Amino acid sequence: MKKLNIALVGCGFMGRTHSNAFRKVTNFFDTPYQPVLKRICARNGEKAKTFADRWGFESVETDWRKLIDDKDVDLIDIASPNDTHAEIAIAAAKAGKMVMCEKPLGRNPTESEAMVKAVEDAKVANMVWYNYRRVPAVTLAKQLIDEGRLGRIFHYRTVFLQDWTISSDLPQGGEGLWRLDASIAGSGVTGDLLAHNIDTALWLNGGIEEVTAMTETFIKTRKHSLTGKEEPVKIDDASAFLARFKNGSLATFEATRYARGHKALYTFEINGEKASIIWDLHDLHRLQYFDHNDVSKLRGWRSIHVTDTEHPYMKHWWVPGLQIGYEHTFIHQVADFLTDLGGGKSASPTFREALATDYVTAAVLESAASKTWVKVR
Amino acid sequence: MKKLNIALVGCGFMGRTHSNAFRKVTNFFDTPYQPVLKRICARNGEKAKTFADRWGFESVETDWRKLIDDKDVDLIDIASPNDTHAEIAIAAAKAGKMVMCEKPLGRNPTESEAMVKAVEDAKVANMVWYNYRRVPAVTLAKQLIDEGRLGRIFHYRTVFLQDWTISSDLPQGGEGLWRLDASIAGSGVTGDLLAHNIDTALWLNGGIEEVTAMTETFIKTRKHSLTGKEEPVKIDDASAFLARFKNGSLATFEATRYARGHKALYTFEINGEKASIIWDLHDLHRLQYFDHNDVSKLRGWRSIHVTDTEHPYMKHWWVPGLQIGYEHTFIHQVADFLTDLGGGKSASPTFREALATDYVTAAVLESAASKTWVKVR
Amino acid sequence: MKKLNIALVGCGFMGRTHSNAFRKVTNFFDTPYQPVLKRICARNGEKAKTFADRWGFESVETDWRKLIDDKDVDLIDIASPNDTHAEIAIAAAKAGKMVMCEKPLGRNPTESEAMVKAVEDAKVANMVWYNYRRVPAVTLAKQLIDEGRLGRIFHYRTVFLQDWTISSDLPQGGEGLWRLDASIAGSGVTGDLLAHNIDTALWLNGGIEEVTAMTETFIKTRKHSLTGKEEPVKIDDASAFLARFKNGSLATFEATRYARGHKALYTFEINGEKASIIWDLHDLHRLQYFDHNDVSKLRGWRSIHVTDTEHPYMKHWWVPGLQIGYEHTFIHQVADFLTDLGGGKSASPTFREALATDYVTAAVLESAASKTWVKVR
Amino acid sequence: MKKLNIALVGCGFMGRTHSNAFRKVTNFFDTPYQPVLKRICARNGEKAKTFADRWGFESVETDWRKLIDDKDVDLIDIASPNDTHAEIAIAAAKAGKMVMCEKPLGRNPTESEAMVKAVEDAKVANMVWYNYRRVPAVTLAKQLIDEGRLGRIFHYRTVFLQDWTISSDLPQGGEGLWRLDASIAGSGVTGDLLAHNIDTALWLNGGIEEVTAMTETFIKTRKHSLTGKEEPVKIDDASAFLARFKNGSLATFEATRYARGHKALYTFEINGEKASIIWDLHDLHRLQYFDHNDVSKLRGWRSIHVTDTEHPYMKHWWVPGLQIGYEHTFIHQVADFLTDLGGGKSASPTFREALATDYVTAAVLESAASKTWVKVR
Repeated sequence: MKKLNIALVGCGFMGRTHSNAFRKVTNFFDTPYQPVLKRICARNGEKAKTFADRWGFESVETDWRKLIDDKDVDLIDIASPNDTHAEIAIAAAKAGKMVMCEKPLGRNPTESEAMVKAVEDAKVANMVWYNYRRVPAVTLAKQLIDEGRLGRIFHYRTVFLQDWTISSDLPQGGEGLWRLDASIAGSGVTGDLLAHNIDTALWLNGGIEEVTAMTETFIKTRKHSLTGKEEPVKIDDASAFLARFKNGSLATFEATRYARGHKALYTFEINGEKASIIWDLHDLHRLQYFDHNDVSKLRGWRSIHVTDTEHPYMKHWWVPGLQIGYEHTFIHQVADFLTDLGGGKSASPTFREALATDYVTAAVLESAASKTWVKVR
Repeated sequence: MKKLNIALVGCGFMGRTHSNAFRKVTNFFDTPYQPVLKRICARNGEKAKTFADRWGFESVETDWRKLIDDKDVDLIDIASPNDTHAEIAIAAAKAGKMVMCEKPLGRNPTESEAMVKAVEDAKVANMVWYNYRRVPAVTLAKQLIDEGRLGRIFHYRTVFLQDWTISSDLPQGGEGLWRLDASIAGSGVTGDLLAHNIDTALWLNGGIEEVTAMTETFIKTRKHSLTGKEEPVKIDDASAFLARFKNGSLATFEATRYARGHKALYTFEINGEKASIIWDLHDLHRLQYFDHNDVSKLRGWRSIHVTDTEHPYMKHWWVPGLQIGYEHTFIHQVADFLTDLGGGKSASPTFREALATDYVTAAVLESAASKTWVKVR
Repeated sequence: MKKLNIALVGCGFMGRTHSNAFRKVTNFFDTPYQPVLKRICARNGEKAKTFADRWGFESVETDWRKLIDDKDVDLIDIASPNDTHAEIAIAAAKAGKMVMCEKPLGRNPTESEAMVKAVEDAKVANMVWYNYRRVPAVTLAKQLIDEGRLGRIFHYRTVFLQDWTISSDLPQGGEGLWRLDASIAGSGVTGDLLAHNIDTALWLNGGIEEVTAMTETFIKTRKHSLTGKEEPVKIDDASAFLARFKNGSLATFEATRYARGHKALYTFEINGEKASIIWDLHDLHRLQYFDHNDVSKLRGWRSIHVTDTEHPYMKHWWVPGLQIGYEHTFIHQVADFLTDLGGGKSASPTFREALATDYVTAAVLESAASKTWVKVR
Repeated sequence: MKKLNIALVGCGFMGRTHSNAFRKVTNFFDTPYQPVLKRICARNGEKAKTFADRWGFESVETDWRKLIDDKDVDLIDIASPNDTHAEIAIAAAKAGKMVMCEKPLGRNPTESEAMVKAVEDAKVANMVWYNYRRVPAVTLAKQLIDEGRLGRIFHYRTVFLQDWTISSDLPQGGEGLWRLDASIAGSGVTGDLLAHNIDTALWLNGGIEEVTAMTETFIKTRKHSLTGKEEPVKIDDASAFLARFKNGSLATFEATRYARGHKALYTFEINGEKASIIWDLHDLHRLQYFDHNDVSKLRGWRSIHVTDTEHPYMKHWWVPGLQIGYEHTFIHQVADFLTDLGGGKSASPTFREALATDYVTAAVLESAASKTWVKVR
């Protein structure tokens, strides 16, 4: 098995999910490459060192630029805050490195387009970590759609509900809180949460034609943890939009961090002429499925426990009935990346595919600002 | 439509469910007879009068013996406490009246056998109110079994869980509490709750061969509301048994009034070679169904919302999606009784059929006392 | 108890639910008035006669105008198609009759305003049958909000999903299908289904400021059952909108008859600072409740089985754990109407209150047509 | 961090779960020891080699006896079939090695007692892999009980339902099927599945006094994959028992491999005077909790999503709302073992604690054979 030397930038929450995935993938999957945890990079050297010890990275960097010319690095994986994505990715691509990037791609389509251009010009393998496509139940949903089991699609309905920013005492910015700082994050829930809903939707249901949106910032000012001052909150706390897909179906999208009682309730429902499906991140190992072809008196929503050998990815894990969790979606993504790399291509979603999501989030923000329907680029 | 003159004995909880059923049945069902609420009988004349006014009974009696020779009474319906069932039913049958009786039939098989003999000798229509058979979802379960959809049955699993007697302050006996007085009730949860589980089980899964049981009285003494004294509690607070059915399947049965959090959680599950079903009184309008014949990657428990026109009894009610409730099971039972009466027969369960349940409860109580396996008569 | 003579117009689905409610209410509730089923009116005399026999109406009319001057009629209840509401209600009010009207009030605000004026000028008791307010779980939701348990409201989220018009073979218009004929119904799902969502929302969460909407007609032509010809479908098959409430909360609303797998999935969710609630018509006897005040490690969505004596309306029914169904919401509405009538006022929602819903549906249809945000009147 | 050299015997399903746990534990937990995957041992050298490559074991053995005197081995972990447990464990203990053993401990109490004696005589750290105690939701259940939140316990109710042996075509014995061969497994579902139910129950609810049981072998003969002949099946396919706990509570236990529709439905429910809990392996990240102390109109079963920082083990994983899965229970068990080892003691359940489970399973099998109540040793 060939080695694939990884340099990871960022050792926060996403740094952990990626490290775990790289470290674990070959215990369960047969892939043409074996990832090697070569470098970990973070501005805070102390933190990077601790992280390296825990995960077994061979060495530590505090300046990502050092990785660019590092001969021992094959792939740069970006898990640092959104404002660093474009610069690192473009530099890495220019240096001929493969690039993986946490979602969203850039903070806006301008950044994202430049990133796409860079990887395509350089012809390097690239991928964006929209991990939820690799939940087995979501991949199964994709299979059912591709098999034509749903028929013509009428409706797509999706939310991403959290409640972690309801307290007005929560500061903005700083360690672990950069998602509340618009200058770093780009936007609030639109780029952070809705981006997931949109990526999955585009994958499952095709392109979006146009949107009408509204956003809201419920708590207008928060103390900034870097300046120590009460400052205006510039991100969107909540974002919702109506959409028309190119296939004629209608959709509602909504994300918020003010839905008391929900930690990470990412759900979607698709209603087709012949069948419907529902999925829910809080019980990610299940898919709800309603099939109109069933004998009429026995029709009902089926709760499919997506743990059987025949289900996507599941033959690599345990035995039927035993569920996997959140972290496994990243492992599947790495497994697919390595397999596709062996086949000479980039795993989906590539930078170009992820750019489509950024066009939608941009249209959403524009619509919310202008209070008009906006066509998606 | 012919009139059928009803005399109802008892105006407690069951008196209300029966009155409602008689009064409402022909608004929804086409039956060969129209029940007429002719007489209401209760020892407390005042209470009977109030009840008659509310429900439209034509007149009131305080001694049930008066009903026996009443020419204007076609059918005597017994909804008074268990200790009155045998005497009233036997007298009524001897006088040639049709008889309906709340469950359980008698307090013990001796009483019940005499009741069966009386109605059979007199050749009068008779029925016992095991209403849960007429929950549409339960009737649907029966259809599925009769259609062979489950195949060979391996397991039957059923509970009836309540929590209303946990407080030691609750007195025994007296108004609304006769179910805690063994001399009136015959037994505790075995005759009150398990009788329902058993009736349904015999109907769905055939006869029971033998049982091993345990019972318990958690609170040993309670104030008796008639004597005002603290007296030993003689009923069983909880009762559980293992059983072997004649068809080779194994079963567990359990009932209690000490299951905190459950008000009336009557559930059953049946596992067959080809399919399984689950039902639950707390959501009585649903049936869970698992079909092994489904495409394997799409197998899952279906939650059937039993409100479609094709579902048992449902075309008589509203439109698909709109649920009915507890009271409707009694209406269905009356509708079936009237229809069968028009066809010259007694609706199920007849006294004889209900006697089979009493044989099981008797075996359960005997097994619990003797700590041995007991064959069911 | 005083008699209240009812004349019912219409003997379809709603005619049945109303008749059942009038007939049954005093068996369970103590009210100052006893409804009497005096007249049933339908254009088809044969059908009306059959209906009268089934429900015990004293006599039959085929022209509603006859009811207007009928001295023996106290109240006219309108359960006929939407295009008849205004004319009948206005005539009835002018004649000094009390008026009940099925929802929606008129086909548009112009009709509805005239109806409001008529009942207010005549000072007659009036009510619109938005029955879902009287589901015990929904009334409980109202209590929780009024008690301040939710705190500041951030989000309201509601859908009404059906699937009964997906087949293109279904004709429009005619018996049982007037809801597909825009000239009779006024609109499609906006007036038929969303009106329910809106009425409940206004009641629970106050007024709506503005909306942006989209509607769709998926099947463009259908055979008209009266003309026998394929004709354009003019109703909206699906309708969705975003809204801002006066209290600052954001909302999504959606209704459709193209959501495969759902018969009558009316749901709402409200997210407050301190607590959240979810309700679902498919299990109408439950309320989901999340309370942030719970000990943190024990927080979870509670599934409240709304069948306890303390729950709204439930002490009138059976015992804890035993559910009621759809029809009971109408009985509650009559019980409240009669009680309020005894107190000299009209039960909520009055015609005036129901007009507020029509203003929202009008804004929704206008927004969908103009593709702009529209302020609600 | 000190190294702890592991020799693992067995490279089947359990070999994988253990290897994963050893390999991953220090990425997430701070422990005083770092497990090192030193030796893998399996009779089939080819298979062992492949396994070693996949998991990173340093070397391979085909005879477990070689491990006993291996100076570089600190701990022997037994994940081979049940018939090998006693011999290996006793030899390992005598050689002064720490010992971990898959459940059940031995095939019968005689074997198990010898194993307990061996580790206690040798004073070596020891542990049995009853992994379900370390599901965060189950550990939370233990906390709630220990905090007295349930009060006096009335009922314990538990099942373990599978459906993988329903087909009569399935052979017995041989690769992956030794659980169907009584000479290797010791018993059928009693030792394989009920042992889990019992271990958890003893931990949560204390000792069991006595039991009455029944077992069944539904398919009497199966082809043996080693002999190629149709041979009698000697294991129990299903096993159920009633029990009385020392604390006065009543219990029902049931396990089967013939419950169509269930892959690994291990559930338990505990009813206390003040609160009740329910857990289910199919959604292992949730705990259902009913608290009678809640305001009465707001009482309901809470579905606790056990993914918060405050929940057992969860601060080591991701962020609230993101579930973990089956494999993590083994990681928790290793983490606890290493921590306790640092504190000079054996993590629970030790061999002695696991012996208590074997006494119950022995009583169950004896009761089923004798058809009498049997006291548990």
